[in-house]
Amino acid sequence: MKRPGCWKTPAVAVCLVLLAGLQAQDLQGHVSIILLGATGDLARKYLWQGLFQLYLDEVGKGYSFSFHGAALTSTKQGQEFVTKVLESLSCPEDVAPERCAELRGRFQQLSQYRRLRTSEDYMALSKDIEAQLQHEGLREAGRIFYFSVPPFAYADIARSMNSSCRPGPGAWLRVVLEKPFGHDRLSAQQLATELRSFFQEEEMYRVDHYLGKQAVAQILPFRDQNRKALDGLWNRHHVERVEIIMKETVDAEGRTSFYEEYGVIRDVLQNHLTEVLSLVAMELPYNVSSSGAVLQHKLQAFQALRGLHKDSAVLGQYQAYSGQVRQEQQKPDSFHSLTPTFAGILVHMDNLRWEGVPFILMSGKALDERVGYVRILFRNQAYCAQTEARWVADQSQCLPRQIVFYIGHGELGSPAVLVSRNLFRPSLPSESWKEVEGRPGLRLFGRPLSDFYAYSPVREQDAYSVLISHIFHGRKDSFITTENLLASWAFWTPLLDSLAYEAPRLYPGGAANGHLLDFEFTGTQVRFSQQQPEQLVPGPGSAPSPSDFQVLQSKYRDSPLISAWPEELIAKLADDIEATAMRAVRRFGEFHLALSGGSSPVPLFQQLATRHYGFPWAHTHLWLVDERCVPLRDPESNFQGLQAHLLQHVRVPYYNVHPMPVHLHQRLCAEEDQGAQMYASEISALVTNSSFDLVLLGMGTDGHTASLFPQSPAGLEGPQPVVLTRSPSKPHQRMSLSLPLINRARKVAILVMGRMKREITMLVSRVGHEPKKWPISGVLPSSGQLVWYMDYEAFLG
Amino acid sequence: MKRPGCWKTPAVAVCLVLLAGLQAQDLQGHVSIILLGATGDLARKYLWQGLFQLYLDEVGKGYSFSFHGAALTSTKQGQEFVTKVLESLSCPEDVAPERCAELRGRFQQLSQYRRLRTSEDYMALSKDIEAQLQHEGLREAGRIFYFSVPPFAYADIARSMNSSCRPGPGAWLRVVLEKPFGHDRLSAQQLATELRSFFQEEEMYRVDHYLGKQAVAQILPFRDQNRKALDGLWNRHHVERVEIIMKETVDAEGRTSFYEEYGVIRDVLQNHLTEVLSLVAMELPYNVSSSGAVLQHKLQAFQALRGLHKDSAVLGQYQAYSGQVRQEQQKPDSFHSLTPTFAGILVHMDNLRWEGVPFILMSGKALDERVGYVRILFRNQAYCAQTEARWVADQSQCLPRQIVFYIGHGELGSPAVLVSRNLFRPSLPSESWKEVEGRPGLRLFGRPLSDFYAYSPVREQDAYSVLISHIFHGRKDSFITTENLLASWAFWTPLLDSLAYEAPRLYPGGAANGHLLDFEFTGTQVRFSQQQPEQLVPGPGSAPSPSDFQVLQSKYRDSPLISAWPEELIAKLADDIEATAMRAVRRFGEFHLALSGGSSPVPLFQQLATRHYGFPWAHTHLWLVDERCVPLRDPESNFQGLQAHLLQHVRVPYYNVHPMPVHLHQRLCAEEDQGAQMYASEISALVTNSSFDLVLLGMGTDGHTASLFPQSPAGLEGPQPVVLTRSPSKPHQRMSLSLPLINRARKVAILVMGRMKREITMLVSRVGHEPKKWPISGVLPSSGQLVWYMDYEAFLG
Repeated sequence: MKRPGCWKTPAVAVCLVLLAGLQAQDLQGHVSIILLGATGDLARKYLWQGLFQLYLDEVGKGYSFSFHGAALTSTKQGQEFVTKVLESLSCPEDVAPERCAELRGRFQQLSQYRRLRTSEDYMALSKDIEAQLQHEGLREAGRIFYFSVPPFAYADIARSMNSSCRPGPGAWLRVVLEKPFGHDRLSAQQLATELRSFFQEEEMYRVDHYLGKQAVAQILPFRDQNRKALDGLWNRHHVERVEIIMKETVDAEGRTSFYEEYGVIRDVLQNHLTEVLSLVAMELPYNVSSSGAVLQHKLQAFQALRGLHKDSAVLGQYQAYSGQVRQEQQKPDSFHSLTPTFAGILVHMDNLRWEGVPFILMSGKALDERVGYVRILFRNQAYCAQTEARWVADQSQCLPRQIVFYIGHGELGSPAVLVSRNLFRPSLPSESWKEVEGRPGLRLFGRPLSDFYAYSPVREQDAYSVLISHIFHGRKDSFITTENLLASWAFWTPLLDSLAYEAPRLYPGGAANGHLLDFEFTGTQVRFSQQQPEQLVPGPGSAPSPSDFQVLQSKYRDSPLISAWPEELIAKLADDIEATAMRAVRRFGEFHLALSGGSSPVPLFQQLATRHYGFPWAHTHLWLVDERCVPLRDPESNFQGLQAHLLQHVRVPYYNVHPMPVHLHQRLCAEEDQGAQMYASEISALVTNSSFDLVLLGMGTDGHTASLFPQSPAGLEGPQPVVLTRSPSKPHQRMSLSLPLINRARKVAILVMGRMKREITMLVSRVGHEPKKWPISGVLPSSGQLVWYMDYEAFLG
Repeated sequence: MKRPGCWKTPAVAVCLVLLAGLQAQDLQGHVSIILLGATGDLARKYLWQGLFQLYLDEVGKGYSFSFHGAALTSTKQGQEFVTKVLESLSCPEDVAPERCAELRGRFQQLSQYRRLRTSEDYMALSKDIEAQLQHEGLREAGRIFYFSVPPFAYADIARSMNSSCRPGPGAWLRVVLEKPFGHDRLSAQQLATELRSFFQEEEMYRVDHYLGKQAVAQILPFRDQNRKALDGLWNRHHVERVEIIMKETVDAEGRTSFYEEYGVIRDVLQNHLTEVLSLVAMELPYNVSSSGAVLQHKLQAFQALRGLHKDSAVLGQYQAYSGQVRQEQQKPDSFHSLTPTFAGILVHMDNLRWEGVPFILMSGKALDERVGYVRILFRNQAYCAQTEARWVADQSQCLPRQIVFYIGHGELGSPAVLVSRNLFRPSLPSESWKEVEGRPGLRLFGRPLSDFYAYSPVREQDAYSVLISHIFHGRKDSFITTENLLASWAFWTPLLDSLAYEAPRLYPGGAANGHLLDFEFTGTQVRFSQQQPEQLVPGPGSAPSPSDFQVLQSKYRDSPLISAWPEELIAKLADDIEATAMRAVRRFGEFHLALSGGSSPVPLFQQLATRHYGFPWAHTHLWLVDERCVPLRDPESNFQGLQAHLLQHVRVPYYNVHPMPVHLHQRLCAEEDQGAQMYASEISALVTNSSFDLVLLGMGTDGHTASLFPQSPAGLEGPQPVVLTRSPSKPHQRMSLSLPLINRARKVAILVMGRMKREITMLVSRVGHEPKKWPISGVLPSSGQLVWYMDYEAFLG
């Protein structure tokens, strides 16, 4: 059980607490804030200042405080360090210097360093806190433990803390964690599980400091306060694109040991940019100040993200990087890192609001400027009748319309919210945001600054100050919950895996990058705009990629055979199907495609759904070659596979989809329900001459095709176009197009993939027309064309 | 039969031909060109010069010529006029003045005026030509009759010409006609029929002088010569929009008697802009120099045009116009013209290449500049990693990418072809097109001229010179065939009809127009960007707008009644449906919605599809309340309405959609096919307790609801949940949910809209439970809720 108290642990520690200067402001109780890693860089630069700011903001509102800096550093060194940091703390601009010195003095009195190493140290800390509370007659409100330490130290600290340092009953515990929160889905899951053994979900505050950046923190309030203006605009009908950008000029020198393990996607995109994305994309809760509602809507946004694939990303690495890694990590001259320092990613969302809108996430080191922003560009759907010189910025709908959350740096040099004047005058809280003063000559996003309503914070605040305040106020929506963290890793991990062995494009760095890192997108694919210049390609030959191999064309059973590696084969088959579809639609106005079930066509469906934008789906009829006698939405149903992998991604008119009627009158494939006859008459009514434009078949290891099985006469000949058959494997009952009907098709494609098919492929290559033994051997379109598509494993073994 | 010769007609004429200066260049034969209307404005400004240019181009290539100016003007006056015009003819710049005088002299010798009025005059003309041919020993190549006369004169001339003036056997006849070619589809058809009684299709050359403009004439050759670069670009995946623009600064003063009858759409859009549209949009023939292929592809482009409706257009009229009409046509002060002098039209094409791409056609008088252009703007699908200041025009894919055929005037001042340097370096015939010299400071379409590869003609040529040469060479693709003409009128006439009584927006003219004529498009609708400013709106008060009124809540037939203006009512109903859906999905995991057909729910469907992003479609089952016994894709089918207005815009899983099985075994609603029973068992299998979560009904003027009709007992009571019924109106056969099934629903909403419903609304408010007389009165959910949604017109009359 978790309870306050101090138990023995093997480590050794020195622990000092000084509690002083407490005033009688403890109506709300006392808060102890323990900063672990108090002598580290982050603490020195931001956290102590953040705690001071918290003190300034909250003192006099009924709380009393004590601040415990802690680390492994010896007491003396630690004290010296902390004293120095505390002396350098600054007040907001509007505080007079003497007043500031006075406040700083009081804060210093409440702050102390103590060494924390062993479990005993934590126990001692807790006892000291309790003693102070008792001594001063204070009620404990809560304790904040800020883990500004590397993740490998989490477990030990967490264990000691949990066992010895929890606050007393009725008081809260908040544990603040800093990234990295794992390296991929699995490690994040492990870390999360470990932490959950010590802390409740509501006790944990995972920091993404981007959520404390003022412009980022303003996204949801802005959406809320401008609901009326944004309501009709914030969707795929009006948004042309969303850019979420963090550019750095620095490189990774001096940090390569960290960077080599992470790279830009883990370092920036998986966390900062993804968080920003979710704030832009999420459905806006009715009450944006409800943490629970915000977090829930955010999680829904993650769930709507369309999966990424290799072609969703372009990667770069600044040229000096590998050399820096070699030097800092004593690697041999032959070493070349594959770690990306630049990434451009195209993200799509599968929901009604955002379907089809490109979200462009980009970050990189050694770029030409330091800047961060989210830019929502709206579509230009206007024609302006006057000559351009007469367009007025706040009236012309032909000038760019955009909303920018300018996170910082860049030419503007401060956080800002920009709204094009031809959109609307935004509402921002006037106590914290003010209009930016004119800056003649300054152009942002293609327009002069004066084209925007531009607001910047009245008082610029560091992200950590903002977040420390949010921790204190328990505003969990500014932090990463376990669910959100895992959802983000679930989104990014497949991409990271697929890119693990990709060589990033090398770039010189800074302005010299020119247009080398520009990228373009079509559909869900992204690629660099320029060809890789020769001189930048690294020497060593990489493994051959599938596209280095040609698609081979030859003959099989006297018909054309196309063979290739799986990916190439599927791409070729999809291309051929599209070409056939286009021809059919041009000639006849429609395209009748009969598809087989099973797992082989799944990658084909995915290829067609995600890569073939020109496919004439609106004019395509989809038929089933065969079906299992199960309800349509049964996972075993061939139709269900078609629905999941193809239909839900493309727009085929409802009445062009023709599932087999295997389920009639609440029965499956009952002869007397005449489902096969119904399907046959549907075909005869809609398909000219009952000749499908294309029938896609597979081949079973027993030589079956469609649901026509060896040694079972049904469907091999005779007048019935559609038949009920029996499969040797479950579910036994099937419905299938008959061989004579298949052979009426204009084109039949047989897709055979995988090593398992090797034997039957060999066998069938030698047999004649023996459909009763090998139904596949009976496939021979009477006046159409037959083409075999086999991957190398099926064909060459 | 048509044969050369001269017959008597009642008219009188003087006819003179002077044939002189013929040289021995008649290897190809002799061509007689008869210019009818030789003393008119068009002839004076363009046609004589065009004929002279033809002479210059073609003399010495084996033809001999004679040019006959003809008109109704007396011989003496005509001769004087022609002599004066001939003396003013100019040579191309590269011809020395003495040489030019010599050439002009020869041309004058070949040209003569003659009065042509009666049939005898034409006979005499023909005899003179024949006499000359015989005298000079020339073989006749052909005759060109150029009708530069008003259309009402066509018939007489054509009759005389046809009967008396056809060339001899083996020689061709070309008849050149000038617009207008009718006023709408019907009049164009009548005129075409009349002309076809005199001339063969291949003999007729209808002039649209825009097709002779050099930049327009270059569209197809440009597409042909840059096929490789354009192949992947010239389609909906890459083109963002196409603008086809003709702006004028002049107004219609002095021409209002013509203009009042035509207006800008007939004057410019139906012909010039539509021709340009077809050249941009048509599939490119393999051989662009084949007139037949070009004309055929052009016709196909016309066939792909999506029909226009009232919302496809915005109309304007310059403020002074009505006054000018009053003055020029002695109209009373109360007269206000509805003739548009400005139109912006949004055109879409329903084919694979262009689906979804907006084609914007705009023309107007009294605008701020004179310019004509076609602009193809490509989509920006790039992200550029460098700051904008570093973007290089020929490399950055983030700068606008456009191809412009600059027809003339404007800031450039000459015809041109412009291609953004970040697209490709275009290929143009160097003998006729040269690169434009730099013009520092000149910006076109948002970019400096230097951002474009810009070409202009080596020699600027007037459109009529170009066209006269094309007539001579029989290049029919530069002219309007009867088929194309009628296709264009078929496209424009419905729009013209629907706009006939629309009041155009008034605009001051010139630069003062400001943003008043800017317009925006969403989907297939277009509207002015700015509200009509008060001071320009003509006096009478306009109707109150929907948002001026609150939604009222009261009672009707003891159930809640919600009434509002239509727009508000639909918004409220959609909100209520979404709320009901969310509740159902939260409680039961699914939402069963039964929808009625007809036109009332269409705006509701549109509202749901375009405004309700959070709607749980993935968990919604859609059922039909009733259906007409027609095939599912029949335009009359309720399901078809649902598909077109809702299903194609949202993602409802295939098996959650439940059309009524009215079409089984190729029969419609046959009792023995048991469609009603099938639907009932589908409902009972999927809908818990057969209780729909929401049933949406309408109410007919006869008190019917669903497809349950007065005085017809089917479905009003009894155990059958789904029934076949008979409607008094066509199609008579219907399938419908029964009253008892409807009354099992958790909620029933009845939507009643429009003035037509006023009477039945009054009546039904007073009747009791009399479903046999008024089926609607039987709607009373046994344990669910009933809500009436009525617009003010239905409720208040």
